[in-house]
Parts: sequence; structure tokens; C-alpha cells
Amino acid sequence: MPLEPSRTVAELLELRELTGDENGAQRVAWTPTWEGAQEWLATKLEGLLLEADVDEAGNRWWTLRGESEGAVLLGGHIDSVPNGGWLDGCLNVVAAVEVLRRIAEEGTPPVTVRLVNWADEEGARFGRSLFGSSAAAGSMADQDELRELTDREGVTLPDALRGHGVELDRALEARSQLESAAAYLELHIEQGPVLEALALPLGAVLGTFGVERHRITWRGQAAHAGSTPMDQRRDALAGAAKLALELREIAERVGDGAVLTSGGVVTRPGIVTSVVETAEQLLDLRHLDAGKLAAMWEQAREACERFAEEERLEVETERIWQIEPILFDPHLIDLCDESIREVAGESHRLPSGPLHDAAEIARAGVPTVMLFVQSLRGLSHTKLEDTRHEHLELAVQALDRLASKTIDWVSAS
Amino acid sequence: MPLEPSRTVAELLELRELTGDENGAQRVAWTPTWEGAQEWLATKLEGLLLEADVDEAGNRWWTLRGESEGAVLLGGHIDSVPNGGWLDGCLNVVAAVEVLRRIAEEGTPPVTVRLVNWADEEGARFGRSLFGSSAAAGSMADQDELRELTDREGVTLPDALRGHGVELDRALEARSQLESAAAYLELHIEQGPVLEALALPLGAVLGTFGVERHRITWRGQAAHAGSTPMDQRRDALAGAAKLALELREIAERVGDGAVLTSGGVVTRPGIVTSVVETAEQLLDLRHLDAGKLAAMWEQAREACERFAEEERLEVETERIWQIEPILFDPHLIDLCDESIREVAGESHRLPSGPLHDAAEIARAGVPTVMLFVQSLRGLSHTKLEDTRHEHLELAVQALDRLASKTIDWVSAS
Repeated sequence: MPLEPSRTVAELLELRELTGDENGAQRVAWTPTWEGAQEWLATKLEGLLLEADVDEAGNRWWTLRGESEGAVLLGGHIDSVPNGGWLDGCLNVVAAVEVLRRIAEEGTPPVTVRLVNWADEEGARFGRSLFGSSAAAGSMADQDELRELTDREGVTLPDALRGHGVELDRALEARSQLESAAAYLELHIEQGPVLEALALPLGAVLGTFGVERHRITWRGQAAHAGSTPMDQRRDALAGAAKLALELREIAERVGDGAVLTSGGVVTRPGIVTSVVETAEQLLDLRHLDAGKLAAMWEQAREACERFAEEERLEVETERIWQIEPILFDPHLIDLCDESIREVAGESHRLPSGPLHDAAEIARAGVPTVMLFVQSLRGLSHTKLEDTRHEHLELAVQALDRLASKTIDWVSAS
Repeated sequence: MPLEPSRTVAELLELRELTGDENGAQRVAWTPTWEGAQEWLATKLEGLLLEADVDEAGNRWWTLRGESEGAVLLGGHIDSVPNGGWLDGCLNVVAAVEVLRRIAEEGTPPVTVRLVNWADEEGARFGRSLFGSSAAAGSMADQDELRELTDREGVTLPDALRGHGVELDRALEARSQLESAAAYLELHIEQGPVLEALALPLGAVLGTFGVERHRITWRGQAAHAGSTPMDQRRDALAGAAKLALELREIAERVGDGAVLTSGGVVTRPGIVTSVVETAEQLLDLRHLDAGKLAAMWEQAREACERFAEEERLEVETERIWQIEPILFDPHLIDLCDESIREVAGESHRLPSGPLHDAAEIARAGVPTVMLFVQSLRGLSHTKLEDTRHEHLELAVQALDRLASKTIDWVSAS
């Protein structure tokens, strides 16, 4: 069967019909709709000479045995957030079905090729993302902590998993799946506005950003808006305002795609007749370079101290979360770039802001790359998420080329 | 009886014992505790040859008839907010008792002198302040609107008033009380930090600030904190941050005691992973000069437009409330200054941020002045509100001098 990218678009639309409603995609992991989507996926692979398998973490594998054990993996996730987009996650598994069809038709490949559908990438039901891929990568969070998680109805994570044949205690045994992995490829929608702004359909992903996430608390003095002269105020909002604006200066100084966000400020007492006593501010700093990320936080922290002094405030910073940048494989990035240029003329290299299963696999030491396709208006995690059909078709073609080049590279090494 | 300022302090402490608890003063209008406070006040005036009267709005009057009809009024309010301070409101009625004792002892004064305890200055139970004084001034809000007000237990304002002998429909008849009024004097705690910062016990009040109150809504675009480059963001928080800082510039430019406050900002979606889509900001602008107040709002509005353009945001402004500045009588301000200098050496003229019953009476055309006594740490509407006892005694002396000077002025005119 020659590659038919339009079939991928048709199948994606079919999946949307099957598992979405007027509010968007409803393929939340560990639910009947998600199981339905997985069964639908299995039917698409019937008739190809593949070994089907489910690992201890609930990840679904389809293996096309090649002349050697070393395996090229094509991975994605069919689960979605509630009211999600039609493409987020499932694009890659559906596109990889088409690529597998093409490879399988050509006979036994020189290396093994596997399609994996990771379980629960989104973490929508229990609040922990990357369940299946982190189990396979051996980087899963403390299981005692996972054991305590419950959904909104009070169902525990272990009970929900058991309903889908997965024992939490055995999930880490999924690690054996990566033993033969020689490369990992993942196509995903960009979920950002960069490719659209450049009018390019496709991009090669350099890695996923490192993240520093902090809560900044500014403390001043509540005071009557009418009776307190300007020079006698200790206005907590002033600290938060200065920092919100300073983030752009830090981005400018650090450069290379640095992004800094103040996602929100909560003011107290928050009434019209009082100077703000307390302002709690959320900060999210991201960079692909660990050193630059550290410099960004250092500059933000120094700015906090400086503004606290200027405004006679107290300031407290608390790290909420952090993750190191995860870089993809330089040679695979080159192959991805080449594949894109062959099908679309021009390529662009960009980092990924959001995390992906690919980051877990790269962290586990498997050479990895991602391929991004343009998102319209950069929207994601909403039913408004969309990508042009012609761009989806180009993405399938580029993934197919990338798979071929990667198979050649792995078999030659 | 010669003036005994220390008796006023003792009586204030007695009232605190009688009507407060561990959380502060509990003399909320239209409650039994408030009635108890009023009865206590009446006992303090027994034995003086006064006519006692309650008007149609529930204001309590004690009249010392003088040689002429024209009356000098000493007014305050014995009601408090729940968990309020021991001095807010009642200081003046208790101090005026002492002044009346001194005047009454000297025989028939040349003009009539009246003490008034205004009903429900705070509006703590039904959310509308200045009930009694606005009725007497004829500036009371639409009665149809007042009729609909209920407290937390669902009791309507008219029913609560009826329980205290007041018919809402007749409240405006209290206007007749001001027909003979020639001057109105009110001593109050400052409720702000100005006198404390100047290390002065007393100040003469120029009037009450005009107020412009607005809600500013900034609208940008929610966008992923990881995947949206800095130059492609439309961050609503940036508009609010710039405006919060610009308020100081406006205060600087306009001067003369201008105060501008951004009392709070509410951000949406307000999560760490998203650029802020909407920021709602509360603004409160105050000045004693109507023209300058208008200029302040004009400059703030222009700043909104400018920042919206710079940040590619939409901005909407909505006036929540406004009131014109109310200026006190220049001659009475002079007399107040003189009185303060005589008892404390140095005086200071300052505006009042909060509104007071005095503003209503001034609006009604009665020559008015207020005398402020220092508040410790500028605190008010909390049990932490406090004033040094020696400053309270100086305040009683200054009020007494001011009353004498005002009586002379009124009798001479």
C-alpha cells in the first residue's frame, strides 16, 4: 500500500465522530470512551502482520518485526483532556498507522518498527500526566504518592487502573519495552503560534523547555484609599506590577527563546477602598538551556529583592515545580529537518513549550525527535484547536520520510 | 463646671466596657447595643437644662436654648461598625457632652447650642451610610431603593427602623432640624496616618475628598506559557501593571494631596501555565479640588488607552461611583486652626479621605468644619484603632475653644 496521507485525515475525522461531542474530544484516559478509541485504533491495524501487546503500564504496542532487534518507535497518545481538541495526541498514532501500512507493505524492514500508544499522557482524571511513558522510562513519580490520588468522584488511581487491567505496583515493569529501542519519533501539533506566524506547516523540535515555577508573595500594608498619602503607602500590588513588567526585560537579556509568564496575581483585601496588603503572583520561566534558565530565575529573584526594597515590601519566593530542559538527538533533528524540507520546501527548528511523552523517552536515553505541525491560532486543550487538512497531509508525508531515514540510520549503526 | 477633658476619656472607656467585647465595639445602628449606647449617652446629659428630642430619622438632639434661635451644632455618631474601634464616631458625642456641660454652667449662651447624635452613620447593617445626616440634609438616596434593602437575616430596612420608632416614609421630615443651624462642628479621629507622621495631635479639616471610582477591564489573549513567544503575547496583566504604576505619576503631576489607588486586580484564567486573558482592576481617585479630580481621571483614562495600544489589548472603563469634593467653611477652618494652636501649639490643615456626617451638613449649606485628632498607625474600622489619651484630652480642649469661638462668630453675625 503506498502512503495515502488523505486517509489519515479521514481516519482522524472518523475518530472525532466516534469519541467527541459538541464540546470537543472526550477520550479521557481510564474511561470507556478512551477504551473505545483504543479498540478503534486496533481495528485500523488489523490485517498487517503485527504483534499486538499491552504492557504493565497500560501502553499498547504493535510490533513489525524487522531483520534486527533494534527498534524504531513511533509514539503518541490517543487520550485527550475533557472537551479537548481533535488532534492533540491522536494525530501521531493515526499518522503512524499509515506509515506502518506503507512499511509493512514493502516487506520485512531492516530494523524492527513499533507503534506505541502511551497510556494517560494528559493526566486529566488524576492530575498526573505522562503516566505510561514515565513508567516505561523508569522516571515515574513515587508510587506511594500515586496510590493516594483520587478523581473527582473519589475513585482511587489504583482502582481505576485495575478496571483497565493495570496493576499500579507492576507499572514500572513496562521499562523492559525500551530495552531494544534505538530511536523514538513523535509527530504532534505545535500547540503554539510560532509556525503559523512564520507561515510554515512543519518544524523540527529541538527539545522540551526546562521549567522553573515559583509563587511570589508580596506583603505590604492595607491602608485606607482616602486617608493614606501616596508617600506613606506600602502597596503590595506595586511589587507584583513591577515584576510582571520586568519579565520582558529578562527575556530580552537572556534571549534564545526565553519565555517568562506571570500567570496570575491574587490581591488581598482586593477592595476598592484599600491599598493592597498582599499580592500572590505565579511565575513560570522556561528555556531550552539549563544555564540560561538558571540565569532567568536568578534575575527574577534579584528583581524581587530590588522591588521589595524600593516599595518597602516583604517578599517571599517559593518554588512550586521545576524540570530540566530535555534535548532531542542532534542527528535525528537533522533527519527531521531534511524530511520537512523534502515535503514542504522549508523547515524551522523550535523548542517545545509543553512537555510530551517524547521528553520521558529522551530522558531514558533513547535518541528522540519530535515533528511539529502548525496549529491554527496556537490554540490547544480546547475544541477550537485545529490544523489545516493539507498541513496534516504534509505532516504524514514528513513523518513517513523521517521514519525511513531513521530506519536507515539505525540499521547502518 | 469647668471643662474636664480627662472625664471624656473616662466616659469613652466606660462606653467601651458597656458596648464592646473582645473583638471591638459592637454599636451597630438599629440594634439593642446601639440603643443601650444612646440611653447611656442620655444619662450623661441628665441634670443639664436641655431639651431632648428624637427627629423623624432617628437622630437624637439635645438643645441648650440660647438668647437667639440661630444654633451651633456639635455632631457625631455613637454607632460603630461590627468589631469597630472604641473612638470612631462616639468621640465627638462624648466630647461634646463635656463642652455642653461647660457652656451650660456659664448660663444662657448668646446663641442656641445643640448636640446631635446622627443615626446610622456607618450603614453597617444595611450597606447605606449617613442615614440620619442625609435625611436632615435632604440629600437622602431614593427612598424606594432604601425600602428594598435587607440585612443578612433578611430583615428589611423599614422593619428594622420601625423597631426603633422610625418610619422611613417620614425620615425626610428631619430636614426641619437644620432650619436654624448656623454652624456645624465635628471632632473625629483622623483614620489615617498624616498627623502621626507629622507628630501633631490635631488638625483642621479642609473638606472631604471628591471620589472617582472605576472598574477597568483589560482583555488580551490566553496563551500557553511554554509555547507562546514573548513578542506574540497579548498579556492583560501588562495593562493592569502599567496602570497600577502610572497612578503614582498622576499623583505627582496633579499634586496637592491627590491619592490614587488600585485596590485590586482579578486575573483570568489566573493559572500558572497561561498568559493572562482578562484583568479586572479597581480604581479609586480622590482629590479635594473638583477640577484636579477631573484631571486625574482624564489622565488615568488616557493612560488606559495608551497602554491598551502598546500592549495590543482591549480596555473598557466603567464608572462605579463618584462624589464631588465637599469644602468646609473657610472662616470656621480658621477658627479651628486658631483653637488647635492655642491648645497644642501647632496646627495642620488636611483633607478628609473618608466621608463623614459633616459632609452632608456642609452640602446642605450649613457652615461646617471638622477637627481631626491623630490616629495611631492610621488604623480604623478595627479594634486596633487607637488614639493617645493625652491627644484625646487636647481634642476636647480644642473642640471647646472652637465651640466658644463659633458661638461668638454666630452671635456677632
